[in-house]
Amino acid sequence: PKKSNLLLFGKRGMSLEDDINASNAFYLANNVAVIHKKPTPIKIVKVDYPKRSAAVIKEAYFQTASTTDYNGIYNGHYLDFEAKETKNKTSFPLSNFHEHQIEHMKACVLQKGISFVIIKFATLDKLYLLPSKTLLTYWDQQNKDGRKSIPLKTIQTEGFELQYTLNPVIPYLKYVDKMIEHL
Amino acid sequence: PKKSNLLLFGKRGMSLEDDINASNAFYLANNVAVIHKKPTPIKIVKVDYPKRSAAVIKEAYFQTASTTDYNGIYNGHYLDFEAKETKNKTSFPLSNFHEHQIEHMKACVLQKGISFVIIKFATLDKLYLLPSKTLLTYWDQQNKDGRKSIPLKTIQTEGFELQYTLNPVIPYLKYVDKMIEHL
Ligand SMILES: [Mg+2]
Ligand SMILES: [Mg+2]
Repeated sequence: PKKSNLLLFGKRGMSLEDDINASNAFYLANNVAVIHKKPTPIKIVKVDYPKRSAAVIKEAYFQTASTTDYNGIYNGHYLDFEAKETKNKTSFPLSNFHEHQIEHMKACVLQKGISFVIIKFATLDKLYLLPSKTLLTYWDQQNKDGRKSIPLKTIQTEGFELQYTLNPVIPYLKYVDKMIEHL
Repeated sequence: PKKSNLLLFGKRGMSLEDDINASNAFYLANNVAVIHKKPTPIKIVKVDYPKRSAAVIKEAYFQTASTTDYNGIYNGHYLDFEAKETKNKTSFPLSNFHEHQIEHMKACVLQKGISFVIIKFATLDKLYLLPSKTLLTYWDQQNKDGRKSIPLKTIQTEGFELQYTLNPVIPYLKYVDKMIEHL
């Protein structure tokens, strides 16, 4: 609906999250998909209610999210994904994930959702979409074979390289389409 | 997977949100659906990082959510809903919704999501699931016919009355099944 805004989305931001948020804004404005970043959960301890102005949170703490960063709907499909950056050059460390995020991904896959990770290799300036299936296999194997990371080669073979474009900045739905084809 | 937890979910809580959260915990533990409440978005202004302890948020403000309270996946279907309580006895005031929540619902419907509202008439102690379609019709008509609320009678005719049960506390997916049947 907001066609006049289209050009505003074409700037590559500072972080992977900025770029994904801009891409989601583009997809939303063009009625392609409704995907939002979930707010960080915060435990509020103390709030002041000053007269004639907004409530002020005076003491609060960050909580660990029990799900992934993003979810939403794309043409009838539930999408659920996590965005992660690494400075590593040859593999992606599994220590970037928490057990509860993995549990959440498994639960989403079980419910027939489209679950994946967008991984940025910051040093290489390379970006990949990796279906959760591969991640979950590596996760479950780490206690058997001891491997604590996913090799970049595996990510390149089983995932999709994402190229930055003008609009959207990260056209990740193109590769979600490929995941849907293989459902 | 957490079968031993099943009995823990059977208590009716103080608020509609508590009861929905307990129902979602039940559905999740039994691999029925993955539905979560979105955290309230908060604008953080000042954070202290004390030595040897967790970061403390010292100044922050509540922000208006741009989406609905709950979303997730149920057997391949994207669900998206808002929970609302009213003390009214004969109708539900549209002023309970913000324009951006309505826009979000419209966008979800356009993407073929299952969008609805769970409305509690607190004084009557009655609970209904109302498909967004009805809400959106009333919303769009309010500037034409001037009606600023949805009559309870309409909610009873076009929605579904929810009965509290032991597990889950609010078995709303039973009526989501009916919405899916009519897709
Ligand atoms: Mg992340
Ligand atoms: Mg609400």
